Amino acid sequence: MAKTSKKMPRRNRPPPKGSLIGFAGLGWELLVFGSFALNLVAIALFASPSLDRGATPLGFDSEGSVAEAALVASPHLDGQKEKMVSAEEEISVSSTSGSLPASKDAVINLDHGDPTMYESFWKGMGNRGDITIAGWQAISYFSDVTNLCWFLEPEFDHEIRRLHRLVGNAIADNHFVIVGTGSTQLFQAALYALSPPDTPEPLSVVSAVPYYSSYPAVTDYLRSGLYRWAGDASAFKGNAYIELVCSPNNPDGSIREAVLNSEKGMTIYDLAYYWPQYTPITRVEDHDIMLFTVSKTTGHAGSRIGWALVRDKDVAKRMIKFVELNSIGVSKDSQLRAAKIFKAISDGYELPNPENKYKLFNFGRQHMSMRWNKLREAVKVSGIFSLPEFQPSHCRFTRERTETYPAFAWLKCEKEGVEDCESFLRSHKILSRNGKYFGADRKYVRISMLDRDDTFDLFVERLSSLT
Amino acid sequence: MAKTSKKMPRRNRPPPKGSLIGFAGLGWELLVFGSFALNLVAIALFASPSLDRGATPLGFDSEGSVAEAALVASPHLDGQKEKMVSAEEEISVSSTSGSLPASKDAVINLDHGDPTMYESFWKGMGNRGDITIAGWQAISYFSDVTNLCWFLEPEFDHEIRRLHRLVGNAIADNHFVIVGTGSTQLFQAALYALSPPDTPEPLSVVSAVPYYSSYPAVTDYLRSGLYRWAGDASAFKGNAYIELVCSPNNPDGSIREAVLNSEKGMTIYDLAYYWPQYTPITRVEDHDIMLFTVSKTTGHAGSRIGWALVRDKDVAKRMIKFVELNSIGVSKDSQLRAAKIFKAISDGYELPNPENKYKLFNFGRQHMSMRWNKLREAVKVSGIFSLPEFQPSHCRFTRERTETYPAFAWLKCEKEGVEDCESFLRSHKILSRNGKYFGADRKYVRISMLDRDDTFDLFVERLSSLT
Repeated sequence: MAKTSKKMPRRNRPPPKGSLIGFAGLGWELLVFGSFALNLVAIALFASPSLDRGATPLGFDSEGSVAEAALVASPHLDGQKEKMVSAEEEISVSSTSGSLPASKDAVINLDHGDPTMYESFWKGMGNRGDITIAGWQAISYFSDVTNLCWFLEPEFDHEIRRLHRLVGNAIADNHFVIVGTGSTQLFQAALYALSPPDTPEPLSVVSAVPYYSSYPAVTDYLRSGLYRWAGDASAFKGNAYIELVCSPNNPDGSIREAVLNSEKGMTIYDLAYYWPQYTPITRVEDHDIMLFTVSKTTGHAGSRIGWALVRDKDVAKRMIKFVELNSIGVSKDSQLRAAKIFKAISDGYELPNPENKYKLFNFGRQHMSMRWNKLREAVKVSGIFSLPEFQPSHCRFTRERTETYPAFAWLKCEKEGVEDCESFLRSHKILSRNGKYFGADRKYVRISMLDRDDTFDLFVERLSSLT
Repeated sequence: MAKTSKKMPRRNRPPPKGSLIGFAGLGWELLVFGSFALNLVAIALFASPSLDRGATPLGFDSEGSVAEAALVASPHLDGQKEKMVSAEEEISVSSTSGSLPASKDAVINLDHGDPTMYESFWKGMGNRGDITIAGWQAISYFSDVTNLCWFLEPEFDHEIRRLHRLVGNAIADNHFVIVGTGSTQLFQAALYALSPPDTPEPLSVVSAVPYYSSYPAVTDYLRSGLYRWAGDASAFKGNAYIELVCSPNNPDGSIREAVLNSEKGMTIYDLAYYWPQYTPITRVEDHDIMLFTVSKTTGHAGSRIGWALVRDKDVAKRMIKFVELNSIGVSKDSQLRAAKIFKAISDGYELPNPENKYKLFNFGRQHMSMRWNKLREAVKVSGIFSLPEFQPSHCRFTRERTETYPAFAWLKCEKEGVEDCESFLRSHKILSRNGKYFGADRKYVRISMLDRDDTFDLFVERLSSLT
């Protein structure tokens, strides 16, 4: 199994002379002030095009309340208020989200894990991933009433199980498959299913720091009486809880186990990134609840399709009930499309493929490998950042010793005087997600590694110029 | 505007002699006992094929708890416990959901509003409603970041506004359009948007009896601290509330206004059925929040697409935030498909159409008219049921005086000794939704009028045989 260095290597070098942006000769105080001033200019510049439509530029609401605005700049990271800000702001969309930077010095938005890297793979697949749906098809609410999960399209069920057998990353065949509107919906379905309906106090939901920034927000936005976000699993005291284990972990790519262990405790495994393009497949996972998402498997984030593998029938029934109440099932169109997409992937490995094309995981590994090499090189050139390190492991799928290439870079700013890496990068028109949303220090940011080639190349070029 | 008779005409006739099922000469006590016995037989017969997969035959969980099972038979309809049962059981799927009855005496399932009636229209449309999505399309999370609703596909936005202009049922052009995973998700988004985030007590959510059976369930399943189901709007005391106004109303087809009127109160208009196939379009609705759903407009329930028209920008932003947190947007595939479907409908009316084919609302009205005539005839023949009556009105869309043909029949059993119409019909293998889930008497049931022709014809045939 891949191991990560828990402590990031510190490289507090002084900035090299002849820096590209000409700050090398300035005092640190001036530099911090300059960074702050640049922030203000950047906000004024980039916010304006979207203000009239009310979009949320630069990671927070353009019309956010004073309290929210104050908290963005607040150094107090642990309080209840911080939690509420996180719930409101975690997913924020700006005028640059999802689009290519217009010029060499344009804003580079890597805040979201938008997996547009995969577009070029699917363009290369010809019509293998195309689907036509006739006007009269898929009209009914029901997909298969002989299945416990009555809104699961049988073809998608079949292709999910086939893909897990091909990759060997998780046991599907003794589990119920439940489809959801992204794994986000299934995460909530699992919380609902595991919480006793008659509980006087909400059940505590925890995850070890750094945890996926959406967990607190999605747990708390409805102030449910069933469950409540309780922060870092490592700091949790008590016996009754739901622990979220994301492995490989979003944001830092580490392979994880549960940190808590109590008879009354329950665990949800978020395995969104346990695919061979990101990490060696070292074993077949076989947990009670495992969550996956199409967006991180094949790139199709816009389809909003996730699935859960669930061992226990009563838990599966409660999760299905949640999806019924939350959205009366899941888009059939997207399920049919996801089935076709998965079929194209499995066919690429299982049918004769003399030119060795059409292999998604090979494409993914190749791209991630090149990107991580470029990123590590840029970090080296810049000298003011650090990244997690990983050990190679034997991958059961590729049958090789392979490296770990996470879907996100968990970047730490080692530069003296920079307390908030996200603000620092923003002053250089790089949008990332602040470490504070992951329960971690603001010296960290999460950066998506899954954007389009041009965006990624521009990012590493700019990063290497920072000193 | 269509008016409904608030009181259903009572027709407590004795059963006619020579009844088809031979109960005419029996005493009432025996008949009730017979009905009960038939229930038990029916449960045993129909439950068995799905038990091994854990489906939920006959409207309640096959493995439901004792408490649940007891409550199904409980005559106490007002308590908190009843509410919880409703939340758990309102949407229940059986082995007969969504499929054609296999034989003349098979179970007829009209519990859900599954709009499969529209399949034949779309088959007649040739390839006009077909869509092909390429493997590389719609990969990103983002649809249009210049729009406040960043996950709304621009083509769908355009076709929604075009369709409202064509039909004249609601003002879209001074409203924000927000897309949702069915109007169910948008209903919850609206509750979230209208509830003060810092409220010490949950805001009361009310609707006049009979209200849509999903409202209590969907409001309460997460035990939110923001809002709470508070029952019948007509019985509500207080100033702060959210009133749900469904018009035409599910289940009874009546045109409705808000029954409460307070400065602090807020109203959500559920206009799912305000389309010319169901009711005369008597005015252009122009409310703060109006909800619609593709499933009841065109039949595509499996796509799980709804939309909201929202006047206030801050309310729109909160609703968008809900959809972000709940499912990070809405299936692009289904939005693209819905755009194509809507385009085909508007084209049918706005482009040259010499044969007068391809007109969805004409198809819908024709079918609903025939079905309601058949149903009223069957009710007359049977003599033990009653239905709501409606007045014709001038329809701005058809430019004719037209009748009301609701998507559901709100059927009352007038037969002496029958206290629970749903059980009575179930004993004759007709599955309907019990009036108690709508806050009403168990002498009422809701029956879907939107199933396939064969199912509907079998239903009226069987209904007319009941005495």
